[in-house]
Amino acid sequence: MFMHNKTLQYTVRVADPNPALASLILEQFGGADGELAAAMRYFTQGLAEEDAGRKDMLLDIATEELSHLEIVGSIVAMLNKGAKAQLAEAAMEEAELYISMTAGGNSHTQSLLFGGGPSLTNSSGVPFSGAYVDSRGDPSADLRSNIAAEGRAKIIYERLINITDDPGLKDALGFLMTREVAHQKSFEKALYSINDNFPTGKLPGLAPFASLYVNTSQGDGDVDGPWNSGEQWDRIDDVAAAIPLDGGNGLATVKLGKDDKAVVAALAARTASDASANPTTGADLGAGPGAGRMSDEDMGGAKDMPEAAAMADAETDHG
Amino acid sequence: MFMHNKTLQYTVRVADPNPALASLILEQFGGADGELAAAMRYFTQGLAEEDAGRKDMLLDIATEELSHLEIVGSIVAMLNKGAKAQLAEAAMEEAELYISMTAGGNSHTQSLLFGGGPSLTNSSGVPFSGAYVDSRGDPSADLRSNIAAEGRAKIIYERLINITDDPGLKDALGFLMTREVAHQKSFEKALYSINDNFPTGKLPGLAPFASLYVNTSQGDGDVDGPWNSGEQWDRIDDVAAAIPLDGGNGLATVKLGKDDKAVVAALAARTASDASANPTTGADLGAGPGAGRMSDEDMGGAKDMPEAAAMADAETDHG
Amino acid sequence: MFMHNKTLQYTVRVADPNPALASLILEQFGGADGELAAAMRYFTQGLAEEDAGRKDMLLDIATEELSHLEIVGSIVAMLNKGAKAQLAEAAMEEAELYISMTAGGNSHTQSLLFGGGPSLTNSSGVPFSGAYVDSRGDPSADLRSNIAAEGRAKIIYERLINITDDPGLKDALGFLMTREVAHQKSFEKALYSINDNFPTGKLPGLAPFASLYVNTSQGDGDVDGPWNSGEQWDRIDDVAAAIPLDGGNGLATVKLGKDDKAVVAALAARTASDASANPTTGADLGAGPGAGRMSDEDMGGAKDMPEAAAMADAETDHG
Amino acid sequence: MFMHNKTLQYTVRVADPNPALASLILEQFGGADGELAAAMRYFTQGLAEEDAGRKDMLLDIATEELSHLEIVGSIVAMLNKGAKAQLAEAAMEEAELYISMTAGGNSHTQSLLFGGGPSLTNSSGVPFSGAYVDSRGDPSADLRSNIAAEGRAKIIYERLINITDDPGLKDALGFLMTREVAHQKSFEKALYSINDNFPTGKLPGLAPFASLYVNTSQGDGDVDGPWNSGEQWDRIDDVAAAIPLDGGNGLATVKLGKDDKAVVAALAARTASDASANPTTGADLGAGPGAGRMSDEDMGGAKDMPEAAAMADAETDHG
Amino acid sequence: MFMHNKTLQYTVRVADPNPALASLILEQFGGADGELAAAMRYFTQGLAEEDAGRKDMLLDIATEELSHLEIVGSIVAMLNKGAKAQLAEAAMEEAELYISMTAGGNSHTQSLLFGGGPSLTNSSGVPFSGAYVDSRGDPSADLRSNIAAEGRAKIIYERLINITDDPGLKDALGFLMTREVAHQKSFEKALYSINDNFPTGKLPGLAPFASLYVNTSQGDGDVDGPWNSGEQWDRIDDVAAAIPLDGGNGLATVKLGKDDKAVVAALAARTASDASANPTTGADLGAGPGAGRMSDEDMGGAKDMPEAAAMADAETDHG
Amino acid sequence: MFMHNKTLQYTVRVADPNPALASLILEQFGGADGELAAAMRYFTQGLAEEDAGRKDMLLDIATEELSHLEIVGSIVAMLNKGAKAQLAEAAMEEAELYISMTAGGNSHTQSLLFGGGPSLTNSSGVPFSGAYVDSRGDPSADLRSNIAAEGRAKIIYERLINITDDPGLKDALGFLMTREVAHQKSFEKALYSINDNFPTGKLPGLAPFASLYVNTSQGDGDVDGPWNSGEQWDRIDDVAAAIPLDGGNGLATVKLGKDDKAVVAALAARTASDASANPTTGADLGAGPGAGRMSDEDMGGAKDMPEAAAMADAETDHG
Repeated sequence: MFMHNKTLQYTVRVADPNPALASLILEQFGGADGELAAAMRYFTQGLAEEDAGRKDMLLDIATEELSHLEIVGSIVAMLNKGAKAQLAEAAMEEAELYISMTAGGNSHTQSLLFGGGPSLTNSSGVPFSGAYVDSRGDPSADLRSNIAAEGRAKIIYERLINITDDPGLKDALGFLMTREVAHQKSFEKALYSINDNFPTGKLPGLAPFASLYVNTSQGDGDVDGPWNSGEQWDRIDDVAAAIPLDGGNGLATVKLGKDDKAVVAALAARTASDASANPTTGADLGAGPGAGRMSDEDMGGAKDMPEAAAMADAETDHG
Repeated sequence: MFMHNKTLQYTVRVADPNPALASLILEQFGGADGELAAAMRYFTQGLAEEDAGRKDMLLDIATEELSHLEIVGSIVAMLNKGAKAQLAEAAMEEAELYISMTAGGNSHTQSLLFGGGPSLTNSSGVPFSGAYVDSRGDPSADLRSNIAAEGRAKIIYERLINITDDPGLKDALGFLMTREVAHQKSFEKALYSINDNFPTGKLPGLAPFASLYVNTSQGDGDVDGPWNSGEQWDRIDDVAAAIPLDGGNGLATVKLGKDDKAVVAALAARTASDASANPTTGADLGAGPGAGRMSDEDMGGAKDMPEAAAMADAETDHG
Repeated sequence: MFMHNKTLQYTVRVADPNPALASLILEQFGGADGELAAAMRYFTQGLAEEDAGRKDMLLDIATEELSHLEIVGSIVAMLNKGAKAQLAEAAMEEAELYISMTAGGNSHTQSLLFGGGPSLTNSSGVPFSGAYVDSRGDPSADLRSNIAAEGRAKIIYERLINITDDPGLKDALGFLMTREVAHQKSFEKALYSINDNFPTGKLPGLAPFASLYVNTSQGDGDVDGPWNSGEQWDRIDDVAAAIPLDGGNGLATVKLGKDDKAVVAALAARTASDASANPTTGADLGAGPGAGRMSDEDMGGAKDMPEAAAMADAETDHG
Repeated sequence: MFMHNKTLQYTVRVADPNPALASLILEQFGGADGELAAAMRYFTQGLAEEDAGRKDMLLDIATEELSHLEIVGSIVAMLNKGAKAQLAEAAMEEAELYISMTAGGNSHTQSLLFGGGPSLTNSSGVPFSGAYVDSRGDPSADLRSNIAAEGRAKIIYERLINITDDPGLKDALGFLMTREVAHQKSFEKALYSINDNFPTGKLPGLAPFASLYVNTSQGDGDVDGPWNSGEQWDRIDDVAAAIPLDGGNGLATVKLGKDDKAVVAALAARTASDASANPTTGADLGAGPGAGRMSDEDMGGAKDMPEAAAMADAETDHG
Repeated sequence: MFMHNKTLQYTVRVADPNPALASLILEQFGGADGELAAAMRYFTQGLAEEDAGRKDMLLDIATEELSHLEIVGSIVAMLNKGAKAQLAEAAMEEAELYISMTAGGNSHTQSLLFGGGPSLTNSSGVPFSGAYVDSRGDPSADLRSNIAAEGRAKIIYERLINITDDPGLKDALGFLMTREVAHQKSFEKALYSINDNFPTGKLPGLAPFASLYVNTSQGDGDVDGPWNSGEQWDRIDDVAAAIPLDGGNGLATVKLGKDDKAVVAALAARTASDASANPTTGADLGAGPGAGRMSDEDMGGAKDMPEAAAMADAETDHG
Repeated sequence: MFMHNKTLQYTVRVADPNPALASLILEQFGGADGELAAAMRYFTQGLAEEDAGRKDMLLDIATEELSHLEIVGSIVAMLNKGAKAQLAEAAMEEAELYISMTAGGNSHTQSLLFGGGPSLTNSSGVPFSGAYVDSRGDPSADLRSNIAAEGRAKIIYERLINITDDPGLKDALGFLMTREVAHQKSFEKALYSINDNFPTGKLPGLAPFASLYVNTSQGDGDVDGPWNSGEQWDRIDDVAAAIPLDGGNGLATVKLGKDDKAVVAALAARTASDASANPTTGADLGAGPGAGRMSDEDMGGAKDMPEAAAMADAETDHG
């Protein structure tokens, strides 16, 4: 069972109201890498976990993430405190209120729809989605997801720190960022406490394909590295010659029963295209004369569009 | 630029049509860990990558994932081939068609809305979401996300293999599963080819909080492990006594200007609750006599609900 | 700050595994009226609340709802415990696993994607949405939303109780259902502890329209009641004669500047339809002879469709 | 059947085009508390309603809400009329058009994607969702949802009035706001015309838990009020001592069959964590020397982060 | 199978970084009419297509759209290149970074969450949705959807061209726009190469209703045109007199079994409204005296709201 | 303004309740091609339309689609009428209710969450989305979207007719299907009443690319047809040799300022990968011995996976 103490895990000291900044910070409240996503990721894993140690760790960290959700939400409430009251009491002139509500970010919807409280949305106003929670019920996969999620959340806090010059806010954001680092370390320890955690799950890979690198993107820019070359890798460079990799015919087939075969044939016949005709089409009807083959002059009437040829000279000195 | 060859990377041989199984396999077509999510994860990272080696690898693997999307979609098309034609041609009796469309999984919507083609949904019919793509523009975070995503996708293929007894399908799914293993290995190599890849991003953590474990979930089930104990960790067990961790007052505060202060006060006064009264409420109006304090007998009239006390004895021998 | 004790608020005793039932119960985990939606509704309100009493109540109930989320999630984990392990270990034959995964509800995705853990989705597999949280930052509106939400959640638990014959499950669901009743009572008391809580917000309604009932749906079935008749109501029955209600011209107009007027005119001219011609269309091109005016016989070729006339006799004795 | 008259229910007189304001007003077109959500909430209830009076009322109000959708959409069209034509005709310079499209709110997407017409989105550009419609098929729940929804919609109109100084717009918004007040009154009358409307549904609550208040959030800020104290309430303050509330063991259990037990054990064994080791992890590999225990100096290299201690002094005078 | 060449189909030359413009261009990356939606529309159709010619065409164009996705994503990456590095390296002052991130459009979320890479969202930050892909598995419907989609995509590019004065960008956008024109022409040819492509599918329409125009919107503004008048149309103007169109009773009925009838009756009785009483309601409780019938003076206290009468004079000269 | 008459546009006579069928029919209530999507598509276009004829037509058809929404919703209500009451009154045994709720389709959520009323979801329970409404504010694009949407909706009704043997239901569905045919005809007439409706919008295509077909998918299955060959087309078959099509360098470039250049370089240096090393990775840590190069024997331990070689013989006789 959860219990709550009204003391925050970390003190929040905001220097000045700033609704636009509040709307950015919502990214960590109801966004993809936000604290609710984190709490629910670990909580759902913890409830179904058979290993007592991992279960305890997952519930510890889930609970702490809820406490961080409280810190982030409190920051948003403080940044919006004045704007919320101004709008509710209609204390400013209409034009002033309008300007204050459209000062940037997604602050307009925050004020208009949510009245300045923390909303379960990201910084664009997109509602939180359960799809952010990628728990799959396998610890070797889930712990890797948790490690990655902590790594992402750390980055978002770093970016928020970089755009904030309020020392109290920077301080609280620094605390939150650092806790993601600590959590990642816990998840790393838990992952490597499982013997044989690679590959995920139980089934091993098929030997002919588990160390194969397929060089599907070619041309200028091909680079060798330990991710595609060396003794841990087999490698295919002439892809067109190698496919299909199983030596079959490279087609998709299914064995249909007699009835199905007949009906598939009927469908194919009914909807067959007549590739030999050149039918008049809606585009032919809709275009003026010459539309089938537009001339260069067509462009001239409306707006000046640069010629591709002219552009080719302009590309020097690009970064 | 992309080019396409109509030969599949791996031959697809389906023994029998099975629309319900097709609807499950859509999890890897338009689902959270499916091939489109994978392709777009790496493609979006590759387009913005400054490092030539990582860019090449990301485009290689993105392109291969598109080829896997083609394999998965072709499996779905084969499993639905007969059902699609039967419905389009109305070749079976209505009742038979109805039964065939409600045979399990999400096959009803697949037939009704998508006509048996592969749809950009998961196995529940939930449309693919761009939110599955968790690229963040920082290689030390993104590569961890890629590693985790490959680990998750591998598990889903393993589960599909476990429920399929069609040898051709098992074969193709085994190939796809194994390629996720290989891709994970590439991303691991790329991650550890970056010096100083932990923590993610550039900013280090704050020393007082980076090695701290907060034991927020207590009671029976507390377990020590390398994720919360040992020399790499400081640890707080008496959480209530320790908060706030910064030695402040544990409150959220903001410095308001004079005008804002006055308006906040006005809002508070206008919406204050009178905690001393006991007002009549809508619930009081809506309930019959005694509703404020329901009696045990209330339960009896409608349905038998077991007493909590009686239940307490029944719990032995649970697994 | 949140803290957690591994003892549940209410003991969960499940008699038998049942993944299909588990998928239904997810409605209260990640669904619109589920426990996370409830917890977040009250939590977001509490963080921005100025009234100490309401803030305390909102945090109390939010925390309890998180504890209910834990109970619901634990029920789901118990109902799926066997199925999860069977799939992970591939301990049954493929065909058996396939059948067990498609036994109804949304259990197929629960097993395939989420591995039997509680997922942040509803009973159809639709991901939880932050849009379920309808906090608006005004207490007279938010408390009404809370009252309604508790009323809805109560109904969903009632329906789950009605389809379950496991006494331990019925017992836990009965507890959860009852707590919604208690929470509704608290929110009712808090709403009516605010003087002048109707209408919501601060601005009163415009007198000419605040007691007006517009009878827009007419014909057989018009009924008088206290919601549209009596001394508290003015009423308009001849709607067509009454509009527009403001005595204006009933049009939408805007004052455009001279430049805008000219450009709007240019747009109108460029895209004007020629209502006097009868152009050949894509439909005309695409249909066979007679398609412009289909004959009754057209229907006969494909499937028998009942005549409307024949149907008219069949309608007697409908309930 | 629906019919339409081109006269609006209320005349719309917009003084000046303003695409950014138009994008805010979309909140009431395709947003959570907007007119389509309202119309569909009542319409879906009305279609399945058995009570003739409520059915009539629901269809009356649904139809009026559609007429309000028309008013709101017409306002949006008027505010965008000039901008739409300017963009379609490319009548301004590119830079001017660019500036006009990024003037605030969500006007950029409104122009770019929707061409200045009213879009089925909210003020952030989030598409309308059927999840806004919370009809549950029980009148005692649904009417409470309707009451709450009208209360919320009233607030959004109030906020829009507060930021608008165009008298014609203020006038139309005032009309729309007031109609929500009137509708709430109708729904209140209908709710209390049902005997025994509390609790919702049919099943009464379990007596031991229906009047219980659990004080789960404690610490400074605990407040007594009629929502948690007094003769209508039992109350638990020592929560940790009271759980589980049913006198059981507070665990979640399930009776597994023999086969399931064995497989669960196998899963647990295969994925067990070794809590006694301290494995080298990916974080250990990825961090430079000392990363396991960051020093205070680590912070210095990148950006100045204020010390928590230094911040503690700064908190005086916060509002 | 897909292959990739690092040369773009069209050279991208961006004159200056502009993150706000980048966020607009995302509409064509992850938006409803963007390149991924297009590629997936044709790809899903192609995989299930029986006609060899259409299959080839669909895979050709799908592959080209992926190449256009690459061009659009590369434009976004170039426009964000500086901003991405500035934020990652924290090379500017915090206030400068904050300003650069809130310069318009949805650039704040692009920088904060996605780090400046192309994100699978539209220009409002709404994640790409599989619901944009409207493939239905019938070629006469799907080709019309493709024609329409190309027509929409062309318009979005036209609007982007109209707001951009960077010649290199204009050039690349012009190329992309023009390719949509060419693709529409291909789909038109393919549609009209099917004999009998109207109506879609196999079943013809019912003759009495296939050429009927129902004039449901009346009043000032009724216009005749070839879409509702002339020899191809039957027409109903007196709609109220004509319904129901089948000569039945215009009701919805179902034949219920005896048990169902009894239970429906029980439900109706239990939830019946008492239309004869005038119950006290929550609104009555919540409002001050006179709230049931607000007076005109009520409006005066808070804000000046213009009288509807006064407004009526102001409407002259609206455009 | 809208008005409503309780007589349906077409009589609904349902022979027998069938909640699973009801859940399929929801596809046309709240699905992508359903009646609400249609009504809102035309309504949003109509509100912003400058041409009086098109505006009238759009409002006529929008209003009729709302009336069809009413018919579809009434069908759903009739099919669910018994099940709704049985669940609300708990009139059957729990096990019977459970079975009746999991009889197929998405009926479980329809009963559990929506109580048997029509819900604003599709046949999978996915909430209606405003993204289904693809109005773009340009008549030549919007009318094509309308044509395509009617074509799709017609197909879904055809499929529903094909799976239904209830004559009353078939009759009503046939009416609804036919009206889509009639509406398509109206939109076709309106499209071709605009001179110069191709391409959409105002700007013509660039001549060098408007008649170009790029044969990007090659290999077995290449087919010539009027969509890619003949005098209306230029064609590129040797794609690799032709790119970039503009004669440039095929790269994406941007001109960065000096400061940006320096910071981009710093970012690149900080995150550079060391392609020459072969680092130990998390996968190396996590796998047992030999994992870097799995042997064929690895597969044997868990499940029998067919060898690719063995599969190659099995492919004969596929349909």
